[in-house]
Amino acid sequence: MSTPTSSSTSSSSGTEQRAARAAALDAADPLARYVGAFVPSADVVAYLDGNSLGRPTRASAERLARFATEQWGARLIRGWDEEWYDLPLTLGDRIGAAALGAGPGQAFVADSTTVILYKLVRAALGAPSVAGRDEVVLDSGNFPTDRYVLEGVAREHGVTLRWVAPAHDGGVTPEQVAEVLTDRTALVVLSHVAYRSGYLSDAAGITRLAHDAGALVLWDLCHSAGAVPVELDAWGVDLAVGCTYKYLNGGPGAPAFGYVRADLQDALTQPIQGWMGSAAPFEMGPGYAPHPGARGFLSGTPAIVGMLAMQDMVDLVAEAGMGAIRAKSVALTELALELVDDLLVPLGARVASPRDTGLRGSHVTVDHEAFEATLPLLWARGVIPDFRRPDGLRLGLSPLSTSFDEVRVGVEAVRDALAEVTAARAR
Amino acid sequence: MSTPTSSSTSSSSGTEQRAARAAALDAADPLARYVGAFVPSADVVAYLDGNSLGRPTRASAERLARFATEQWGARLIRGWDEEWYDLPLTLGDRIGAAALGAGPGQAFVADSTTVILYKLVRAALGAPSVAGRDEVVLDSGNFPTDRYVLEGVAREHGVTLRWVAPAHDGGVTPEQVAEVLTDRTALVVLSHVAYRSGYLSDAAGITRLAHDAGALVLWDLCHSAGAVPVELDAWGVDLAVGCTYKYLNGGPGAPAFGYVRADLQDALTQPIQGWMGSAAPFEMGPGYAPHPGARGFLSGTPAIVGMLAMQDMVDLVAEAGMGAIRAKSVALTELALELVDDLLVPLGARVASPRDTGLRGSHVTVDHEAFEATLPLLWARGVIPDFRRPDGLRLGLSPLSTSFDEVRVGVEAVRDALAEVTAARAR
Repeated sequence: MSTPTSSSTSSSSGTEQRAARAAALDAADPLARYVGAFVPSADVVAYLDGNSLGRPTRASAERLARFATEQWGARLIRGWDEEWYDLPLTLGDRIGAAALGAGPGQAFVADSTTVILYKLVRAALGAPSVAGRDEVVLDSGNFPTDRYVLEGVAREHGVTLRWVAPAHDGGVTPEQVAEVLTDRTALVVLSHVAYRSGYLSDAAGITRLAHDAGALVLWDLCHSAGAVPVELDAWGVDLAVGCTYKYLNGGPGAPAFGYVRADLQDALTQPIQGWMGSAAPFEMGPGYAPHPGARGFLSGTPAIVGMLAMQDMVDLVAEAGMGAIRAKSVALTELALELVDDLLVPLGARVASPRDTGLRGSHVTVDHEAFEATLPLLWARGVIPDFRRPDGLRLGLSPLSTSFDEVRVGVEAVRDALAEVTAARAR
Repeated sequence: MSTPTSSSTSSSSGTEQRAARAAALDAADPLARYVGAFVPSADVVAYLDGNSLGRPTRASAERLARFATEQWGARLIRGWDEEWYDLPLTLGDRIGAAALGAGPGQAFVADSTTVILYKLVRAALGAPSVAGRDEVVLDSGNFPTDRYVLEGVAREHGVTLRWVAPAHDGGVTPEQVAEVLTDRTALVVLSHVAYRSGYLSDAAGITRLAHDAGALVLWDLCHSAGAVPVELDAWGVDLAVGCTYKYLNGGPGAPAFGYVRADLQDALTQPIQGWMGSAAPFEMGPGYAPHPGARGFLSGTPAIVGMLAMQDMVDLVAEAGMGAIRAKSVALTELALELVDDLLVPLGARVASPRDTGLRGSHVTVDHEAFEATLPLLWARGVIPDFRRPDGLRLGLSPLSTSFDEVRVGVEAVRDALAEVTAARAR
């Protein structure tokens, strides 16, 4: 089916072929059973925005339902001694093991991505190994919070930002980074998977280059954790941050995770000195001293309620394994691209994501100036893609919760809506 | 009953008298019906730690139980447009109206107390009205996070900390503040109710003094919001921060609230520049510009799951009214002091809280070197007070969830446990 159509009925044989193909992929999918592990939405037939807000698992729904009566209300303050005080670190370890390639004692759950970014960037700029260096390398196509945090820190600390403009399919290559690395570079801050294009950076290679230049590296893993294999320890990454409400399904605004390489922890200090990161939180003595290890990067009281849901998804990720998750993610994005080529490109849409599987995360972005106008139609029909202005439709494919047929239904609906919108404009 | 006893059985007539008195107070309590609005704990007979972690309301338990299926899972990403994006501000307004004496557009819910403190202290120190001033006045008896945050900011910004040692019943008086205010004072940071002693500061008076000296004031309301009347607008307070998991019953680690006086908002900038505080979060354009108004003090993605439970308690606080809540709080602490005098002082305990009702918040602290050893006994008997090292037992009385009889049962159990511990040591 490569003929543009203006209504779904005119392509019924194509629809049947596509449906059969998606059904076959679902039937052969070794992770297919996980789709049923998530709470369904009554009016949604295709949820293609798991890269913005992952669905709740059924186990998380039950955990949240029980929490107030069986944990908070039943254990009351005793919960802190029994479990909650250590949860930022135990949960960090579980995320590290399941999704980050991080050994214990390095990852923690806290704050928001923005706040952890601020703390780790500040900590990195104070590291003895980069003393006297005053440049930070970053990506002008990075997610706004990353750019905004860096702009603020740069202004207050007299640091110069060396911007790299993403060229290669919306991503930054090792070659581009190499061009701006100098002996003044203190830190490189990049996203592992670009939020818009889905470009998958060569994190290992860029980390090596930065280290060769004497700089530290901070990876933003928001769009990769839980969807794309990450090997922080093996890659020798210094610092990382990421969110838990995308592919780790922690719920809207769930706290973020941070990672500080074990052998770097003693050399770094973060600026937001709070009681929960202090050496002896319950002594309440005078004078802050940071707690040794990852705890020293905490600040305020841990957001226990916000840490509930992600626990069940981390278990599923650990059980399924990142290798199998990546394999399904690749198959989902391949199918999405195939459908986009068949159904949307003929209507004038342009693929904005890498076509090379090895350079692509778990979402596919397609540009068309009429996409914004399709959103009300799509939402009304229970099809929920993501949208990034001015014209990017992001199809976020969450490997454990998205079926191949959902991708088919979704892209077909986008085709129908786009055809309707453009036909209405042509009249 | 002022005779020390070593077992509860030897004071049965006293117990009966006290039980009758507590029952009469409960019968006459206009807020008594609210006690049933909270989730009970099967094994707890006296929860006297609502000033550390408030109980869940039944409504919150239901809200949490429904959230994953009816909101997050059902609405998915649409929830952000429908409610969540504005929740930090709408909920801030509701807290402001119910508990802070704050008109709309000034309070917000975000981060943790520690992180908001950091942001607001940094913002205050950059205020044009205090340019050139380099001293911050604070209380050496303040909660650790307040002291630690200030120590960190002072070190990085060359600010001198002028410590006031709490003298008057563990609190700081206007006279003490007046002594250290100079034309170099940029900011005064104090707790409205002292976390240890429960001393209730003269916030209006101290704010006036600070303003007379040209300084800004930041009040920590962690131990007053929801228990003690607060009139931020009327007092002319500049900045405030407070937690929502104590008397606002938001659940463990629920996000904090902040307050920035409306006419000060444009003059202040906070350092953690994130997308949710930017002028146009979804344009994702280059260059951070703060959103006008209270939103400009947000940083990362709002912690929606953490903001669920507090909403129901804010409704209850608004319905009951801070006047009635304060009246019951006073009556509860009066009863607690009476019982402490009758049952614990004879065993060597010392009251560490103000006896003057007007100088006391909603908790009463009693010191005894053997209190730490009583905790396992008390917990085993379903009596849960708070404890602050080295020897302070805090009786936190949450006006809407605590009954007078609960106070009676709790203090009698403390008496029994203390008598047992001291008797065992004497053998």
